Amino acid sequence: MIDEQYLVKLIKHLKEADKQQFQRLIAELQPYDIARLYEELPEKHRSRFILLLDPEQIADLLEELERDEQYGVLVKLGVEKSGQVMDLMDNDDLALLLEGLSPGRIEELLAGMKQEESQIVQSIMNYPPETAGRIMTNRFVWIPESYTVSETVAKMKSFAVFSETINYLYVIDGDKRLTGVVSYRDLILAEPHEQIRDIMFSRVISVHAETDQEDAAMLIERYDFLALPVVEENDRLVGIITVDDIIDVVIREATEDIEKLSASGKSIDFDTKAFVAAYRRLPWLILLLFIGLVSGSIISSFEETISKVVALAFFMPMIAGMTGNTGTQSLAVVVRGLISRDVDRELAAKLILRELAVGIIIGVTCGILISVIAYIWQGNGFLGLVVGGSLIITLIIGTLAGTIVPLVLYKLNIDPAVASGPLITTLNDIISLFVYFGIATAFISKLM
Amino acid sequence: MIDEQYLVKLIKHLKEADKQQFQRLIAELQPYDIARLYEELPEKHRSRFILLLDPEQIADLLEELERDEQYGVLVKLGVEKSGQVMDLMDNDDLALLLEGLSPGRIEELLAGMKQEESQIVQSIMNYPPETAGRIMTNRFVWIPESYTVSETVAKMKSFAVFSETINYLYVIDGDKRLTGVVSYRDLILAEPHEQIRDIMFSRVISVHAETDQEDAAMLIERYDFLALPVVEENDRLVGIITVDDIIDVVIREATEDIEKLSASGKSIDFDTKAFVAAYRRLPWLILLLFIGLVSGSIISSFEETISKVVALAFFMPMIAGMTGNTGTQSLAVVVRGLISRDVDRELAAKLILRELAVGIIIGVTCGILISVIAYIWQGNGFLGLVVGGSLIITLIIGTLAGTIVPLVLYKLNIDPAVASGPLITTLNDIISLFVYFGIATAFISKLM
Repeated sequence: MIDEQYLVKLIKHLKEADKQQFQRLIAELQPYDIARLYEELPEKHRSRFILLLDPEQIADLLEELERDEQYGVLVKLGVEKSGQVMDLMDNDDLALLLEGLSPGRIEELLAGMKQEESQIVQSIMNYPPETAGRIMTNRFVWIPESYTVSETVAKMKSFAVFSETINYLYVIDGDKRLTGVVSYRDLILAEPHEQIRDIMFSRVISVHAETDQEDAAMLIERYDFLALPVVEENDRLVGIITVDDIIDVVIREATEDIEKLSASGKSIDFDTKAFVAAYRRLPWLILLLFIGLVSGSIISSFEETISKVVALAFFMPMIAGMTGNTGTQSLAVVVRGLISRDVDRELAAKLILRELAVGIIIGVTCGILISVIAYIWQGNGFLGLVVGGSLIITLIIGTLAGTIVPLVLYKLNIDPAVASGPLITTLNDIISLFVYFGIATAFISKLM
Repeated sequence: MIDEQYLVKLIKHLKEADKQQFQRLIAELQPYDIARLYEELPEKHRSRFILLLDPEQIADLLEELERDEQYGVLVKLGVEKSGQVMDLMDNDDLALLLEGLSPGRIEELLAGMKQEESQIVQSIMNYPPETAGRIMTNRFVWIPESYTVSETVAKMKSFAVFSETINYLYVIDGDKRLTGVVSYRDLILAEPHEQIRDIMFSRVISVHAETDQEDAAMLIERYDFLALPVVEENDRLVGIITVDDIIDVVIREATEDIEKLSASGKSIDFDTKAFVAAYRRLPWLILLLFIGLVSGSIISSFEETISKVVALAFFMPMIAGMTGNTGTQSLAVVVRGLISRDVDRELAAKLILRELAVGIIIGVTCGILISVIAYIWQGNGFLGLVVGGSLIITLIIGTLAGTIVPLVLYKLNIDPAVASGPLITTLNDIISLFVYFGIATAFISKLM
């Protein structure tokens, strides 16, 4: 979209403070592109850039910027103009922006806003993080049941500019309770004098404001909705969640799963500074370092066995690695499956039995394979049997650990992905070393 | 939504073949819920269930069922009624359904459809898998530039029932080229006599039919669109992609990333049979088994060193494990980051330098820590230095490997996630053993 030539032209207009030419250039860009443009602009041109934008455009721009850049814009705007712009922002995006600021700074910024708008933002920020309430917007159109189609169209016309999405109109009764939904299509297909009550779909699906955002995402995904109404006690309608926010939730949650499975640390992206990234990864690594030392002390307790048959050490990384990998495989299946399915006792039992069967099949296949290889390599049939037998047992245990641990965590309402890949891997390392050297020690006389 | 009581009532109506009562019960269920209901129904009631549904309802039901269940329904319907129902399905969903069938069966089913509809489905199936063309629908409303607002509203009224989404109306010129887009909101806010050409937004963003579905998803995510037009050569409009399909793409792609990162095998979910799951996982595991043996042969080549200082073996799993983990961490950051950002030479260089810095910080921290621990545990200062020094080097190498390997694969247009977690882990295992035992051998006289 944006090339060098475009940037040169834009900077020229900025230097000349030619608002008309500047606006003509900007006019047909999407907010996302304006944000990328702003980020590419040298710092010295940025203030002028902001100055030549209308408040609505700045609000759109803010919604598409990274947090640090957002703060930079607010500083450039000053408190008063910040307030004006913030009034125009979607309140869920605004709540997200304010989240990272100090209480004093939040108060200062909210003071510059219209009281009505600032109250809405504050009420959103009162919901727990990652709930439906946090990602909802109040920019939507609601209509009373008693309206006719033509009254509704009139109301829509006057509110269309303010509302974020007007694909569905939510219908409320006298107590502000959500009682139905009407789509634009319904309105267009209906006769002007018909009452909303008679054309609305009344089995409307909604979420409570404190529902987890992942559950809200699941509903939108299942039912292919474009928006989902959010209610408080007594079905009182307080906002809507739009599908674009849900896509962001889905991407964020998947990224979190990957971060946890790989223990790669929270929110590290391409722009994270090295120190911050290292700081976020270190806790996991240090924990794993100590767990790794546990493996070491297991090996040290079998020192005598190893010194008698050094060849046992050759198969150690293979057995530990395979057990770790098979555990990670099971873990990934469970963690990912839990996203779209609720697991009850019955399904959990079925899953554990399935993975047990998988473990046996995999274990026997790999066990026989390695027995033959070990025999050929070391010319010791008994060594082959010990290595192969150990692998069968450890692969079965590894598969089960990778299945049962996340299921137990899920049952305890702990995010199963915290049983992250490396943790399961390391746990399986330890188990496999015990099994392997335990069996080897038992048969040590035959091995020598 | 669906409880035991509901099911009992439903089965009663099914037994009595009471279509009216049955339809009343079904009426306000969403297609997703009807599909779950069907799946819970004992096999003996299913044929009657299908019989009492209208063709439109069966089409909706089919779109929400798993593939095996879909085929079951088609068999129950017979070829003629299948054709009728398939005419009513979204053509992207239908293409997905047909994909898994034999050419003969596809031909048979298509023969039962209206020629017009079957041609559309066949044209969709001609696009490569995972492209925009494969997930687009032709159920949308397009209008000529020359229409007035009131003509447009009239056309919409007559097409509203057929079109999947009517949030945006795409505008075409005399050559069927996409020239603009008009939202419902625009129509409602405009005057009846205005021409579409004058109120449309002309810088419309579209994708080519052969564009990767992930790129289409990225556009919808960036710009918060509800639909995206799909064009062929010369901007000829051929279909639209709707946001609900994009959510499915995003979830599927994230799941694929996790499957690859954990080498957990393709498409294993809660319902996969044990044999199939084992069969899909085994190739990876067998590959990793052989790689694990490479580690073993490295250790065996250092047999003399180990037999001189057995304590060296105690730290082996810790060093190999840590190096593997740090590689996985870097890998996850890169793979996940590539989803939302294109990486050019400059960004790649920046990223590699960042990870180098992270590797140094992590390496030095963990290296010093383990030196002290090793010294205290084994009472050998030199051993501490060898273990700590090795860890510093291997963590730096591990971090870089986890960064550079996926970037190189990306550059070569290979999916970077195939450098799956276990593969990077095992690669790093091997490197770390070489470094560790290499250093130890060099200093063996001081260690003893």
